[in-house]
Amino acid sequence: MSTISIPVRTPALTYNVEIGSGLLPFVGGRVDALLDGALSAGKAKVFVVTSPEIARLWAAALLAGFPTPPTVLSIPAGEQYKRFATLETLLEQLAEGGADRDTVLIALGGGVIGDMTGFLAAIYMRGIRYIGVPTTLLAQVDSSLGGKTGANLAAGKNLVGAFHHPLAVYSDIDVLATLPAAELRAGLQESVKAGIIRDRALFEYLDTHSDKVLASDPAALTHVVAASVQVKADVVAADEKESGLRMLLNLGHTLGHAIEAATHYKQLLHGEAVAWGMLAAIAIAKRRNLITVDEHDRMERVIVAYGPLKRFEADPAHLVALTAKDKKNRGGNRSFVLPTSIGTSAVFKDVTLDELTYTAERMMAMVARDGVA
Amino acid sequence: MSTISIPVRTPALTYNVEIGSGLLPFVGGRVDALLDGALSAGKAKVFVVTSPEIARLWAAALLAGFPTPPTVLSIPAGEQYKRFATLETLLEQLAEGGADRDTVLIALGGGVIGDMTGFLAAIYMRGIRYIGVPTTLLAQVDSSLGGKTGANLAAGKNLVGAFHHPLAVYSDIDVLATLPAAELRAGLQESVKAGIIRDRALFEYLDTHSDKVLASDPAALTHVVAASVQVKADVVAADEKESGLRMLLNLGHTLGHAIEAATHYKQLLHGEAVAWGMLAAIAIAKRRNLITVDEHDRMERVIVAYGPLKRFEADPAHLVALTAKDKKNRGGNRSFVLPTSIGTSAVFKDVTLDELTYTAERMMAMVARDGVA
Repeated sequence: MSTISIPVRTPALTYNVEIGSGLLPFVGGRVDALLDGALSAGKAKVFVVTSPEIARLWAAALLAGFPTPPTVLSIPAGEQYKRFATLETLLEQLAEGGADRDTVLIALGGGVIGDMTGFLAAIYMRGIRYIGVPTTLLAQVDSSLGGKTGANLAAGKNLVGAFHHPLAVYSDIDVLATLPAAELRAGLQESVKAGIIRDRALFEYLDTHSDKVLASDPAALTHVVAASVQVKADVVAADEKESGLRMLLNLGHTLGHAIEAATHYKQLLHGEAVAWGMLAAIAIAKRRNLITVDEHDRMERVIVAYGPLKRFEADPAHLVALTAKDKKNRGGNRSFVLPTSIGTSAVFKDVTLDELTYTAERMMAMVARDGVA
Repeated sequence: MSTISIPVRTPALTYNVEIGSGLLPFVGGRVDALLDGALSAGKAKVFVVTSPEIARLWAAALLAGFPTPPTVLSIPAGEQYKRFATLETLLEQLAEGGADRDTVLIALGGGVIGDMTGFLAAIYMRGIRYIGVPTTLLAQVDSSLGGKTGANLAAGKNLVGAFHHPLAVYSDIDVLATLPAAELRAGLQESVKAGIIRDRALFEYLDTHSDKVLASDPAALTHVVAASVQVKADVVAADEKESGLRMLLNLGHTLGHAIEAATHYKQLLHGEAVAWGMLAAIAIAKRRNLITVDEHDRMERVIVAYGPLKRFEADPAHLVALTAKDKKNRGGNRSFVLPTSIGTSAVFKDVTLDELTYTAERMMAMVARDGVA
């Protein structure tokens, strides 16, 4: 088994992201080694947090690799369960299951499972360790990295959380084979984003190899996942707490979050909302002459190639209003990530309501024209 | 107004604890200065978290000092509200009130308000700032310091939380005048604890000045609060994350927490439970010959002098069983803080079930003999 290991350096610690095909059965042994044999010595308990669907597909392969069987805690899949009530249930289960400060949690699942498990680990007994085993492309290239954990409030997504880094992340490319095509494509939008903001070579690979990538060719997917992880690792290393550089990762997310909120997190996948948000962002960048028309059109073509982009209904003015609740607004100011070329980008703090309205209206016209049901 | 300022140094930051009489109306100005005038410039919002009872007594004095009136969020007083449901309500209120990353929370209240507000600040938008304005003696000498924040689970007290330091703490001695006598005495048990574990001079002051202290003499109370804060500041500075030295602050807390759990957090105040727990701890120390009989008896006399210690019902074996859930147990081992003289103490990791049973039975005999209704 050949895998790629990418170190993620943070001020607090460095951890490894290992990416490869057929990795799942080896995770237990790797975690035991990371903990100096604490699992095989019976000195540390492991709890796997997952959903019934993912457990049915992948739990057996994962659990088989552990010296003693971990306890499996299951929560329903979906953004609507990323809430305090679910967290409290899991926390009580951890306490009743005898979890202590040496306990290690394993997040086996997509972004919701990862964010929730990381947050559980951040707050159970004021902080225990956790390991990421992301099972969606989106989680592998984005949400499992960087230590952002949390849950939603009724008032907004990810309004509650903590920074808490995993001990390690293991991304098995094979698990992506069971993903619905739409979810794979939505996850690839985060790779497109990584290319646009910081890695021209990745963007060009995605442009020229879209057939292989979209056909889930293992080598092509491993390349794309590893390159995307490297972009995020670089950004996280340079700026752990999102005060500057890390904000670049939010390209497409300001309006993306607004779209998700306007559609009650039900119609679009996160990556699909981000894709629309990126189209809106590159339109502002073109209008500001930050990028050429050619650059804009090439970005648009690649984003659309990794579609199809799903249709949704929203009032442009409502979308603009929803961006005001974005966590990136400090003291009332609006911030927006815009590309400055293919492979470079910057945070612009002076994006006006007029620009937002312009791009939201333009985007909704595109939705009506090009969006698919 | 003369106040005492004690810096609390942690690896992450240093903050000041200011102690004095008549401090409340000056807090707003001090916070504004700390934030470089962000409040008077309208650049940062303030939310005060408190309970209706405390708001009625002290909110006006506190609010008057702010350049613009803060939003007041109120939660019912009491340990039974230190739960996720309360946190979620407050988090939604923050979001709906427009709290952003520049927002500052102020905890106006006792330990529950302080722990909850600190935890809110730790997890709202993955971390905002907060200020402690403790209104009970227990909160002033103990819970407002050290950055431990959190809430309870059904499975146990403080099983969920985060380390999050306040920006500053302001302790107005005058607010203690409205405390019920039992609460003042319970709070003073934490000062007795501070004396026993690390400050012989404080212990002796408490022994020889108990009349003045128990009569709420402002100068005597200011001295005791400041000395107690200094002990905690020293310990926190030396060991932020409780891996060693900080555990000394848990003298009396292992059985104290068990007593609170056995009585469902309803019969005894925290300090009263800790007082019984300290009596249990010094009995083990005497049995181990860590301290002389004279030292033991003097400690016992001072703990009892700051009583009266309230009676409760519990099965000794049940209390011992409850200590197994204590967060201080790593990988199954039992740890216990024991005094080694008046003013010194250490963590002992080899406390046996036999010793725990002995001291729990002895303590319950004392409860039956000396406890008051």
